[in-house]
Parts: sequence; structure tokens; C-alpha cells
Amino acid sequence: MKKKVTPKTLSGFMELLPAEQLVFNRMKEIIREEYEAAGFVPMDTPVLEYAEILLAKAGGETEKQIYRFNKGEADLCMRFDLTVPLSRFVAQHQNGISFPFRRYQISKVYRGERPQKGRFREFYQADIDIVGSEKLSLLYDAEIPSVMYHIFKKMGLKRFHIHLNNRKILNGFYQALGLEEKAGDILRIIDKMPKIGRENVQSCLTDLDVPSEKQKKILSFVETEGSVDEMICQLRQLPIENDLFKTGVSEMETVCQTLKELGVPQTHIAIDLKITRGLDYYTGTVYETYADDFPNWGAICSGGRYDNLAENYTDRRLPGIGMSIGLTRFFDLLRDAGLLNIGAATSADVLMLPMGASTAYILGEAAKMREKGLRVELFLAETKFKNKMTYANKIGVPFVAIIGENEEAEQKLSLKNMSSGEQKLLSTNEATQILLETHVLRKKEPVIRFD
Amino acid sequence: MKKKVTPKTLSGFMELLPAEQLVFNRMKEIIREEYEAAGFVPMDTPVLEYAEILLAKAGGETEKQIYRFNKGEADLCMRFDLTVPLSRFVAQHQNGISFPFRRYQISKVYRGERPQKGRFREFYQADIDIVGSEKLSLLYDAEIPSVMYHIFKKMGLKRFHIHLNNRKILNGFYQALGLEEKAGDILRIIDKMPKIGRENVQSCLTDLDVPSEKQKKILSFVETEGSVDEMICQLRQLPIENDLFKTGVSEMETVCQTLKELGVPQTHIAIDLKITRGLDYYTGTVYETYADDFPNWGAICSGGRYDNLAENYTDRRLPGIGMSIGLTRFFDLLRDAGLLNIGAATSADVLMLPMGASTAYILGEAAKMREKGLRVELFLAETKFKNKMTYANKIGVPFVAIIGENEEAEQKLSLKNMSSGEQKLLSTNEATQILLETHVLRKKEPVIRFD
Repeated sequence: MKKKVTPKTLSGFMELLPAEQLVFNRMKEIIREEYEAAGFVPMDTPVLEYAEILLAKAGGETEKQIYRFNKGEADLCMRFDLTVPLSRFVAQHQNGISFPFRRYQISKVYRGERPQKGRFREFYQADIDIVGSEKLSLLYDAEIPSVMYHIFKKMGLKRFHIHLNNRKILNGFYQALGLEEKAGDILRIIDKMPKIGRENVQSCLTDLDVPSEKQKKILSFVETEGSVDEMICQLRQLPIENDLFKTGVSEMETVCQTLKELGVPQTHIAIDLKITRGLDYYTGTVYETYADDFPNWGAICSGGRYDNLAENYTDRRLPGIGMSIGLTRFFDLLRDAGLLNIGAATSADVLMLPMGASTAYILGEAAKMREKGLRVELFLAETKFKNKMTYANKIGVPFVAIIGENEEAEQKLSLKNMSSGEQKLLSTNEATQILLETHVLRKKEPVIRFD
Repeated sequence: MKKKVTPKTLSGFMELLPAEQLVFNRMKEIIREEYEAAGFVPMDTPVLEYAEILLAKAGGETEKQIYRFNKGEADLCMRFDLTVPLSRFVAQHQNGISFPFRRYQISKVYRGERPQKGRFREFYQADIDIVGSEKLSLLYDAEIPSVMYHIFKKMGLKRFHIHLNNRKILNGFYQALGLEEKAGDILRIIDKMPKIGRENVQSCLTDLDVPSEKQKKILSFVETEGSVDEMICQLRQLPIENDLFKTGVSEMETVCQTLKELGVPQTHIAIDLKITRGLDYYTGTVYETYADDFPNWGAICSGGRYDNLAENYTDRRLPGIGMSIGLTRFFDLLRDAGLLNIGAATSADVLMLPMGASTAYILGEAAKMREKGLRVELFLAETKFKNKMTYANKIGVPFVAIIGENEEAEQKLSLKNMSSGEQKLLSTNEATQILLETHVLRKKEPVIRFD
């Protein structure tokens, strides 16, 4: 006999068994439903692209992490995010699409980094972006996070905040302090504050030759806290005479007001002057989303406003705004925290167990139920009743329909509720009604469960 | 200014603009819905796997076509089908899954072959398989093609046939003729008959030293035609005393009978003794699906019964049955034939066009509509009415809601039907009702349209 190859996957590549895959897919479906509810169009770019395209902008770290190889003459890369493919797509098809261009893409991306807990080499990103030609209304800066709010709400995540900041506020503030040349370094230090702590931030600022009275102002500024309304009020009252700063504050106010009009409650929004995001890319509003009870998770969804999406491929100015959910990582964090509602998604609404009825009768009843929109699995293997029930338990199906000679004679079936154990002799119509009701209820079940 | 990189994709990698992507996704959704209606569980294996795993069985042609590269120490491949990953998965997780294991996977696969019309290097496959442990009921040989029948029906493909054959019938027939040693070569020749023609088949058989009276029997056998019932009858009457042949005919009869019970009409089933499929893999029922009006398309969906799915990875005998749709290729064929119903899927049910009403009013009405399950796109860019309507036309949205000061004062909106041009002043509830009805109708529209 031929030697067997040990079946295994690469480390850093998530693969799920059915019960978890069903919940993962339900999460993906919720994201897709909400993106589509807001009228975003789907995009599906290739996994492989020319290295020259994907690396047109990338710097050292990205290049090291990338899966890159030659096939024939071609120098190829696997995509490492969905933003670079979006830029390429918009530049390439700019005459075939309509602006503002609203697209979503939920796809796998690849980073060949050293695998460690919580880091994946293959992972799903779920992006939405709105890209304008030459200009793009500020109101979209509120629409994007409102979509994300609805997604996390629908998943069942209870306590979370979308943190907002605006790069104009930050840049204006440092200009007003006469620190614009050091602003980049200062922002990088502040960004690390949650990790390194206040004192280390101070000593880093001292190393940067930031005078101590300015250090105090910076720390007092970034540590400003309060509700959205309080924050806006405090920002308005700060004695900073700088136009960029004032523009930023005014943009922030509009975005917060519009978020309110879009039905996003203030309990889920925070103005957070500490967050900055990528320094050479974002130019206005920036976002990071945190689960309140899990600060160590870091941001689970982030993004922002950029001035020029595709400058490496076209002269046309394409400002845009976008956010992205790192779905694989989020799923993994939920699973580790024991928050996944396994069973919120099942593969079938009912399993048909033939127990002596004719195949014709069983298959006919199954076909009727499927026509009504039910997911009906047929168990056609010949085995003992006990084995059939073991299978039903193992796949987690909520109901089984037992169909023997008696059921067929009465043109009925015995519907057994797998959690209560209750069993009833019903007509197919009656059973279908019960199954449809359960199906609808289950669709509303959150995928995240806090016990 | 930095030199621009020309934005382009690799040849052989399909990328779609929104109107086509929406139809493509609707096709994918129909497949998913039908796979799920039959209770198949989703699987999502990694794109990259160890070369040693993916190539455990592969021969020369496959190896040449594969995307294979090294990253660090690891010898990696991009998957070239979904069957090998299924084998690896079932062998690896055999204690964590339940048998019969029913899985579907709709994912991209990669083949680095020379690109030519109709050949893709990245393409979607949509597979279902049912894998048993040690044995698997013959009834599943009917369930699998019944799912495929419902998919093509729902897509709107009118005239098509799922062709059935059984390897036991073929092997038994050649055994009875005393040609078992040449059976493989003969099957390969017969398989080419649609391409090379009857006369070339004859001369190939002569080259194989098949005596002319046996050639006649072979040709008369493979060219047997008739309805399913007629074919079964003819097969039963053939004077062939061979147990394997008889088992095959009896299996075929059961499969055809079960297909009927599953609601698949005889108008869409053909027994076709010419088809064989992969010689060293399939062992019983085999399938190929053809669109009647497009014989040059070749098979659009095929598969069959195998005895041992994962022999390269485990000693456990895992017989199974599966079929696969080459979705990217099928989509491309439909597009070339002008059969795609562009507009069967839209990105939004309605586009909100603010024309002077307050943002608060517009966003509030949009939120109400989304709660009812509508897909509502907001047009928030400030531009002339004409530009807004141009945008609406370009994205193909079926309705726009025009909302000016008057509409707001009356707490209404003006709903314009983009195809009829009709415009009505309606309450949000009235508009929602109309939009929901259209939404439901659109969901039922076939993606394939014969004018």
C-alpha cells in the first residue's frame, strides 16, 4: 500500500469544522446584508496580481510579509489587503464605473508573517469604501461608521464604541503649538500610549526635545474625555487659533450630528484624540472600533478618510472614505472568549429520517418543504434508528422528521424537537409551519452570546 | 510627480464591473441557496496548502499547471480544485465530523495554464459531495443531481439534460466482450467521439486491434438512444451475461427512479452510454450536464461516484459522490451568448436623492426603509439634479426617492420608477410597500434570459 501523506494545513491558516464554519458564515452574511442594505456594490478582484501593481506603494515591512513568486516571466503577488486592489480597480475602470463609487469586498488576503496567536497568514477582510471623483461629501464620513454600527449590533456585540478622530484637528493642534515638524513623531508616540503608558510617552517627548509646558498641553489634549457633546464643546473652547484645527472640529461636529440622524446612539460613539491611524494615508476623519469589555482585543474595525486613493496609477484625484473589519481575527477573539453562539446557525431546519416509509413518500414530502423555503436534509443511509439519532445530535439539527409506515399510511410525519425531546404526529403543512417559525427566530439569533 | 504604474490584471483572471458582478453573485447565491436547502454544510479550506498534500496524487499535466512556490522552508501550492482539499479535510478531521458527511464549497481555484478563450487561471468551482464511512447509500446518487437540476432551473436555463452513465455498466460490458484489458483505452477513444467523429473512433479501435464485429457491438452500444425508460428497457434486454453489468443497470434504474421521486422530470435526464469521466477515480454513477441549445459549450456540471476519496491520507475507506459546477466558465459562456439577464440583480432597491430636505429627514426615512429589509442607497454628494439622475441611470437602480422641502413639509417622498418614468408623492409606508413588492419580484427573476 502506498505510503500515506499526513493530512495537515499550514500554520496561520484558519480552517473550521462545520459547527464553527456555520457561525463564521452567518457573521459574513450579516456583514454582507448590511453592506447591501446600504447599497454598496460587490467587488471580487483576483487573489493574484502583478507584483509591480500591488507593491507600487508598499514599503519595507509589507514587502517582507508578502507571498511573491515567479510563474514563467511574470512576477506575481498574492494580495495583502483589499485597498490596493480597490485603487487599481478604480484607476483601471474609472470610465466604466459611477462616482461616488460605493463598493464592498469580503475576501481573503495573505500575509506571510511569522504566525503567532491572533495573527493569521490567510484572513478575511470585509471592506466598504466610498470613492469620489475630485471631491466627496463629508456626510459619507458618517454613513460608513453607521453601517459598521448596525453590523456589530446585529451580531449581538453589546458594549462597543466607534472611536472618532480627525487628522485636521491633530495637525492643526501641533501647528498651533509650533510643532508641525515633529507632529509625525509625536503622533507615533501618542499612538503607543495605551501600550507603553503615560510616563514613557513623556520621556519619549523629552527625547524629541518637546518643551515640558508643551508636553503638558499635548497630554492634557489627548487625554480629554467626555461624551460626544462634551468633547465637541471642549474642543470649541480650546484657545487654539488655527484654521486647520477649526475645520477639523467643525467636520467632527457634522459627522457626529449626521451619525445621530442615522440612528447611531451616542452610547456607541466616542471622540478619541489619541487615535491617528496610518500617517501618510489618512487626512480627515479616522475610526477605530473597540469592544468595551475587551480592551486587549485592540481595534476590531477601523479606517478613515483619504485624499487620494490611486495616485500610483492615475492622475485623477480620488478622495474616499472606508472602513474594514478583520473578520478572521474577530471570529478568533470571540471564540477564545467563549462568546460564539454555536448553534445560532445550523445546516438544516429538519432532518428526514426514513423508518420504513417508501422513498417516494419521504422524498415527496421533503420536496414540498423545500419549496416553502426550508432547508431539508435527507438521511438515506441504511442503519439503526440509534445511529440516525446520534447523527442528528452530532450535526445539531433542531428537528428530525421520523417517517415510518404508520406515518405514511396517515400521510403525516412525526416531528421531534431535538432540544425539548417533544414529538408530535403532524401533517406536512403543520410541520412546515412550525419549522418556518423556528427558522425565522433562528435567523434573528445573535451570533455573539454573553451568558 | 511619481511615474504611474499602468493598472491592469493578469490574463486569465476574470474581473467584473458592478452590473455583471451583481449577476455573477446572484448566480453564486442561487447555488448556495440550493446547496443549503438540501442541508449541505459549508466548507472553506485555505487557498494555499503544502505541495506534498495537494500533489499526493496529481500526475504530470496537473503539476505543470500548478502555482507552486517556496516561502522560507515551505513548498507551497495554490489549490487547483476543491476535491483534493476535501480529501485532506475528511482524512484530517474524520473524528470531528459526522458521516455521511455532506459538504459544499464555492471557492476559487488556480491553474497556471496558458490562457485562451474560455480557459481561466483563477475560477470558481461550486462543489457538493456526500462522503460515507465504509459505505454510502445509492440513493445519494440521485440526490446530488437533483440539487443541480434545481439550480439550473432556478437560474432560468430552460433546455438542459443531466446525462447519466454508470462505470459498472461500461466495465461489465467490456468484460463480457472479453476486452477488459483494453477497456481503459477504448473508453478514452469513445469519450472523444463528439470531437473526432464516428469514423475516427472506428480507425482508433482498429489500431487497438479490436475485431470489427466487436467494434460494431461497441458502437451500437454507446449509440443507444431513447428516453430514460426506453434506455433501461434496452439495457435490460441486451444479451450480456455479466454480473457487474447487471449491477450497473440495476443501479441506474434505482437512480432514475429516485430522481423521479425527487421531482426531477424525465425531460431533463438522459442516459448516455458515451460519457465516462476520469478513469482512475470514478467507479459507479457518472454525470455530465449539457445545455441542449449549446452543444459546443461542453459539460457545464459534472461528477460521479468514487470508491475511495482519501486513500493518499488515510486507510479508512471513504466512498462518496459529488458534482461540481465550473461557475466562472459557465458565466463567461452565458455572457458570450448574450443570455445574462443584466438587471436581474441590482445593488439597491431605491436611491434617495436629497433635493433640499433636511439631512435629518432623509436619513430618518432611509433608516425606516432599511428596517423593513430594503436596500437603500443615499446620494449625499452635492451636485445638480441632472447629475444625480445620470448617476441613478448608470447604476441601474429601479427607483429613486426625490426628497425636497415640499416632500419634507408633507412628511412624504416622491417615488420615481426609473423604467416607466412614473412619479408619485407617497408616504414612506406606501413607498416601502411598493419597493418591497418589486424587491420580491426581482428576487424571482431568472439570471439567464432567452429573448
